[in-house]
Amino acid sequence: MPIVTLLTDFGLTDPYVGVMKGVILSRCPQARLVDLTHSVNPQDVAGAAFLLGSSYMHFPPRTVHLAVVDPGVGGVRRPLAALIDGHFFVAPDNGLLSHVLAAAREMQIVHLNRPQHFLPQISRTFHGRDIFAPIAGSLAANTSLAAFGTPVMDPIMLPVSAPAVTPARIWAQVIHADRFGNLITDLTEEAFRQWLPQIRLSLTIRAGNAVLQGIRESYSEVAPGEPVALFDSFGRLEIAIREGSAARALGIRPGNIVELVLERGSP
Amino acid sequence: MPIVTLLTDFGLTDPYVGVMKGVILSRCPQARLVDLTHSVNPQDVAGAAFLLGSSYMHFPPRTVHLAVVDPGVGGVRRPLAALIDGHFFVAPDNGLLSHVLAAAREMQIVHLNRPQHFLPQISRTFHGRDIFAPIAGSLAANTSLAAFGTPVMDPIMLPVSAPAVTPARIWAQVIHADRFGNLITDLTEEAFRQWLPQIRLSLTIRAGNAVLQGIRESYSEVAPGEPVALFDSFGRLEIAIREGSAARALGIRPGNIVELVLERGSP
Amino acid sequence: MPIVTLLTDFGLTDPYVGVMKGVILSRCPQARLVDLTHSVNPQDVAGAAFLLGSSYMHFPPRTVHLAVVDPGVGGVRRPLAALIDGHFFVAPDNGLLSHVLAAAREMQIVHLNRPQHFLPQISRTFHGRDIFAPIAGSLAANTSLAAFGTPVMDPIMLPVSAPAVTPARIWAQVIHADRFGNLITDLTEEAFRQWLPQIRLSLTIRAGNAVLQGIRESYSEVAPGEPVALFDSFGRLEIAIREGSAARALGIRPGNIVELVLERGSP
Repeated sequence: MPIVTLLTDFGLTDPYVGVMKGVILSRCPQARLVDLTHSVNPQDVAGAAFLLGSSYMHFPPRTVHLAVVDPGVGGVRRPLAALIDGHFFVAPDNGLLSHVLAAAREMQIVHLNRPQHFLPQISRTFHGRDIFAPIAGSLAANTSLAAFGTPVMDPIMLPVSAPAVTPARIWAQVIHADRFGNLITDLTEEAFRQWLPQIRLSLTIRAGNAVLQGIRESYSEVAPGEPVALFDSFGRLEIAIREGSAARALGIRPGNIVELVLERGSP
Repeated sequence: MPIVTLLTDFGLTDPYVGVMKGVILSRCPQARLVDLTHSVNPQDVAGAAFLLGSSYMHFPPRTVHLAVVDPGVGGVRRPLAALIDGHFFVAPDNGLLSHVLAAAREMQIVHLNRPQHFLPQISRTFHGRDIFAPIAGSLAANTSLAAFGTPVMDPIMLPVSAPAVTPARIWAQVIHADRFGNLITDLTEEAFRQWLPQIRLSLTIRAGNAVLQGIRESYSEVAPGEPVALFDSFGRLEIAIREGSAARALGIRPGNIVELVLERGSP
Repeated sequence: MPIVTLLTDFGLTDPYVGVMKGVILSRCPQARLVDLTHSVNPQDVAGAAFLLGSSYMHFPPRTVHLAVVDPGVGGVRRPLAALIDGHFFVAPDNGLLSHVLAAAREMQIVHLNRPQHFLPQISRTFHGRDIFAPIAGSLAANTSLAAFGTPVMDPIMLPVSAPAVTPARIWAQVIHADRFGNLITDLTEEAFRQWLPQIRLSLTIRAGNAVLQGIRESYSEVAPGEPVALFDSFGRLEIAIREGSAARALGIRPGNIVELVLERGSP
């Protein structure tokens, strides 16, 4: 049963997403359609790239992931399709696949340059409908990737944020604030464990005007309304307020820095 | 064709809901996925419990209803699965099933305490993905409820709001304001009919600063912009403004009281 | 594999849409459900009619399009089902099908007046659930249109906006502002091409306080932040700001006029 996920900045007030689904189902009537999100900030390719890179692996292999945040629509940017670590992707070549590619072991990417696979008429403003959706539908219907275009070796990569690390300090960057106001940083649990020394030192975390001691196991270790740092479902350091919004309470936004400091003293 | 509904406070701006669907489809590729709503106010278990209890019966028997509003995630609250009047439910044990259970004739509830049915790795913050979604998928794929855990006899129940009733007056509580600003109260049509005396008296309804005479059959019995009281699609007394928002115009919110008064006089 | 699309003003904060899907799946378990949008402004029948008329043709033939924007629910307006150019429609008779009908070659419309096809109990406020969804489900399950009611020859038509045209000027009306703030007008590319004289004249477009020269092929022909006029994915003249919101920057809303002027001078 083929699955197609959709991630766009089209919002849900217009029928753009629904129309793309009509095109996909026209090519692959048995496709299962799953929305990742359509509320990416308009033209925020970097934000969308993070969400896509954090989500795709929770779907079965051979799922087709259709991602359209496309400020360059109608211009010279290439439309792409790819098979990366067993998942298919269809997206404009503008960095939307950066997080997926940064973690990839195997990849095969093609430039969608065979118009016979597109809709018969290509508009100037909606390649999501006219180019990307038909390719996603055809991939779901089992057409081979190589049929759609010529190989691409140089997809556009956006810088993928990584923390600055010294022996005693880490500066992590907030890369996403979710619906709850939880602040997700670029510090992975894996990187943190490698950095942490064997000897026991106390860890202080500074996030906006909040100073937190240590990393907790769950929200419920602090009282409602209190800030907490923990490793979250993205596998990343998250600053949260239990049953509240850290983004609002601490005045922190994506791009801001969270500082971790190791100190001798009461462990 | 198994159906899984989803009701959460995750919103639609993050890919959390989409990721849960990926996990469900990994367990049950043929599942049909239907969103009830993901716009429950963050951590509003009581509001979600009302919406779930008002919705599930419109689905075919054996539908799996996955509900995740989970402020206690990572703490001691039990994860549950249940078979209630022919429908399956998967939810944290925090009162989310209160309305469903209050109306139940038959129920079987288990504590999800067999981790072999969860995802291999359990995060501290997203049991919707790691515990509840895999169980929902497995239930949809026809695994029996009893396989997932041990019986629970004492699920947490939140108080289910009921009107205060005297022979001449009812004080009903507004329990939900919908998208249109319609105000749904806890007074059911059935309770109202039992209360209404045989002799004909006039009925006055006070809602905020509005005074309404009698209960109407439809919105269209009053002029656009006028307030109206009627029994709605929830089977409950609703205060509305035709083609307008009663919540805004009358300044009423969930928790506020609507008063019904029987009076002698012009019938 | 039958497809049912849904377009309403119900929003996504209440479970109304989910409940309609439960009813459809009860009648047709194999139906594929696709949301067009549920964010039509409350009671905006004309806006919904445009979106429906712009979307349905992107779905396969025999798709069932369920549209419920129904300020007259519970009143005398007729519920309708129709087969128009190979697509099914289910909607209240209030003009919601105006754009579809205005472009129709073939149509068959019935008044849904056989209650045995509805849900057993009909509420006063939610015919989407009680009347329209069951009919949509039955149509998807292959029941013939004629079974549901008697022929209708006089469906309600709302005026479908068209530009005012003189040899040297066109006054086009903005009929939709999308999520990006792009302003879609009622001037189709086809009508524009017929109007444009053979001799080359310069074209000036006045939209709010912006004056644009000529019609471009794509957003990327102007610099970010600059206004641009082009024919868009609706096949209509659109005023946009590259990577910005024309609605906000130019202060233009649906109902406002965009003026096109042909002038001798530098071509």
